[in-house]
Amino acid sequence: MAKNVFYAQSGGVTAVINATACGVIETARKSRKIGKVLAGRNGILGAFREELVDTSQESPSAIAALRHTPSGAFGSCRYKLKSIEENEAEYMRLLDVFRAHDIGYFFYNGGGDSQDTAHKVSQLSTDLGYPLTCIGIPKTVDNDLPLTDTCPGFGSVAKYVAVSTMEAGLDVASMAESSTKIFVLEVMGRHAGWIAAAGGLARDSANAPPHVILFPEIAFDKAMFLAKVKATVDRVGYCVVVASEGAQYADGTFLADAGASDAFGHTQLGGVAPALVEIIKGAHGYKCHWSVADYLQRAARHIASATDVAQAYAVGEAAVRFALEGRNAVMPVIRRRSSSPYRWDIDEAPLNKVANVEKKMPRSFITRDGFGITSKAKEYLAPLIMGEDYPPYRDGLPKYVRLKNQLVRKKLPPFEPS
Amino acid sequence: MAKNVFYAQSGGVTAVINATACGVIETARKSRKIGKVLAGRNGILGAFREELVDTSQESPSAIAALRHTPSGAFGSCRYKLKSIEENEAEYMRLLDVFRAHDIGYFFYNGGGDSQDTAHKVSQLSTDLGYPLTCIGIPKTVDNDLPLTDTCPGFGSVAKYVAVSTMEAGLDVASMAESSTKIFVLEVMGRHAGWIAAAGGLARDSANAPPHVILFPEIAFDKAMFLAKVKATVDRVGYCVVVASEGAQYADGTFLADAGASDAFGHTQLGGVAPALVEIIKGAHGYKCHWSVADYLQRAARHIASATDVAQAYAVGEAAVRFALEGRNAVMPVIRRRSSSPYRWDIDEAPLNKVANVEKKMPRSFITRDGFGITSKAKEYLAPLIMGEDYPPYRDGLPKYVRLKNQLVRKKLPPFEPS
Repeated sequence: MAKNVFYAQSGGVTAVINATACGVIETARKSRKIGKVLAGRNGILGAFREELVDTSQESPSAIAALRHTPSGAFGSCRYKLKSIEENEAEYMRLLDVFRAHDIGYFFYNGGGDSQDTAHKVSQLSTDLGYPLTCIGIPKTVDNDLPLTDTCPGFGSVAKYVAVSTMEAGLDVASMAESSTKIFVLEVMGRHAGWIAAAGGLARDSANAPPHVILFPEIAFDKAMFLAKVKATVDRVGYCVVVASEGAQYADGTFLADAGASDAFGHTQLGGVAPALVEIIKGAHGYKCHWSVADYLQRAARHIASATDVAQAYAVGEAAVRFALEGRNAVMPVIRRRSSSPYRWDIDEAPLNKVANVEKKMPRSFITRDGFGITSKAKEYLAPLIMGEDYPPYRDGLPKYVRLKNQLVRKKLPPFEPS
Repeated sequence: MAKNVFYAQSGGVTAVINATACGVIETARKSRKIGKVLAGRNGILGAFREELVDTSQESPSAIAALRHTPSGAFGSCRYKLKSIEENEAEYMRLLDVFRAHDIGYFFYNGGGDSQDTAHKVSQLSTDLGYPLTCIGIPKTVDNDLPLTDTCPGFGSVAKYVAVSTMEAGLDVASMAESSTKIFVLEVMGRHAGWIAAAGGLARDSANAPPHVILFPEIAFDKAMFLAKVKATVDRVGYCVVVASEGAQYADGTFLADAGASDAFGHTQLGGVAPALVEIIKGAHGYKCHWSVADYLQRAARHIASATDVAQAYAVGEAAVRFALEGRNAVMPVIRRRSSSPYRWDIDEAPLNKVANVEKKMPRSFITRDGFGITSKAKEYLAPLIMGEDYPPYRDGLPKYVRLKNQLVRKKLPPFEPS
């Protein structure tokens, strides 16, 4: 008999995680071996609470529109599953819900923590004899999953950051003679500098912005930074800085947290960009502007990378294919066949090799002075932002879909995870 | 004999001011009555310094590409001309440069201050008997020029803010159950709330974001704000706030400056968005995210409004037409013929009625509680963001043009304005 799929979105959402959902649902709908796709309302919380969205209630056009709709259509969550020894009740609950709703496939769409959850659930089914095929599906703007060439979600943030850096760079260049000389753009990346690195794609000549990139991987040296900024202004007339939110001093103190509270215990207002602007103004007195992209960067479906959208869809499609082929405890990954011309396909990786491993920027991707990206990094990054994949518009605004999100009838007593 | 045009870009640049330059240059090239268009290097500073870009050196395709290139291609400046009584030497210098380069037309492309400059220069030519046709060309993201229905540059920022609010709103909605409940987007607008108001276009139903908009025109009431945020979270699950950088308390203190320095005289890091987040966290403890759009919003040619691009081009074209028709000391303005369907044309306004007048949001555009926009505001704003006008891309990045910007040979001794 055709078993149902449980699909859930986990962790920070992206511009293209719904494209993955679209890939899962459209592919599952084509198979007679799969019943319904039931989506967790707010990620794994939906499984615990037996809040399962019945995606069979959604029209083909609504599902198709997921491909161009940012964010998590079913809701996401931040929730890390403990080990079975620590919290057996939660695992038992998951099995109860899966059993009650005839779920034979568990698809978990997320980053490192989520792949850990997928891995734990896959062990559970083996240990407790409940037949469940577990597939992890990669997603994270941080691009820090191992074994995959890139992570769906990253390419679109990379494109947003590269385009925004180019645009703001032109702006500052126009103003620099009599006004703003410094622009600082703060981007995501608490542990890895992939997103900041993407800003470097905007640089098409020696004097073009960005002139300085700050990575979490490179200890922040205030004197060197200030010297670089001044030398750039002296030479080019202005200076554009792209900074990871995770930029930090050698002792591990985040720039955003430095001086986080004064003598009265008042919390200072955070952000790497304003912190850098204070440092620059204090030393050089330049007029500065700064921007914090935050959610705008990861939600910016309007400027998504066509490559990223295609890959996000492909991993969703592959998850269903893998499941139907009986593979278990694996994650589809993107394999690069060549950079120029860019060719890629889908491969697989075992979940136990993916969970809890964080891929940082290789040192060879960062220039010797620590303030820029190398041609090797550009070769890696450039294909990921290729192509535009615009959503349809109506009255000047994107036509993003909101699903009905109708829940299936509950069969079990209430349960709330700890 | 065909006189030359002096054209200059002034004040903060926009995503479409180069579309105006494109309109000026393409139209001037078609007329036998006009010689060359000489563009001021860095605005009016280029006239003082005799740094005049010879646009006749640029190919037709380079000039055409200005239409889709953000920022100020010739450089802009922040410089307010004093009265002739206060600084006669500067006015004399302008006339010397105009005479030396056979300039008969003065086109000044900017906001309120710039129209004041254009107006002063127009008086000069009458007073001193130098034949000069002065045309002001409107430009400002602030949308605060009088007599024109809208200002080129505003529609594209409005579209950026509306789209970004919609996208970030979907993101927070996905995360709210177990993580972020508040998102604050800070946008430009120190004196007028037009840009923040545009965020309201994203709201397509009663519970859709943005839930709160903060305008400089409405005194910030902390208690009412906190109550509104809490009521929204209780009802909808999350709350999205769009705040003008100029949001202020009843006594005129900007939120961004409140508590700007502590007892030690340390400057706190500014920004309305982080200030609001501190207020919300302090009162309600919600997890918050915030973004400061800053230059990204006004440089975002990648998501420009097609309406705005067309109007920016049209005012440039009209400036040349007005000049050829012998009109003087006027500014082309956009006249709305109807909102639905949207129809507009170009009219003219005298510079003495434009200079130094600031158009704020009418109270009737803001809801009674001061936290949203009315249907009247929506009717006004909606047409301005209509249509997409994407730049061409190569390798995933927009193909923005950089001009040669070759200067004409200087004929006069050096001069530097005070």
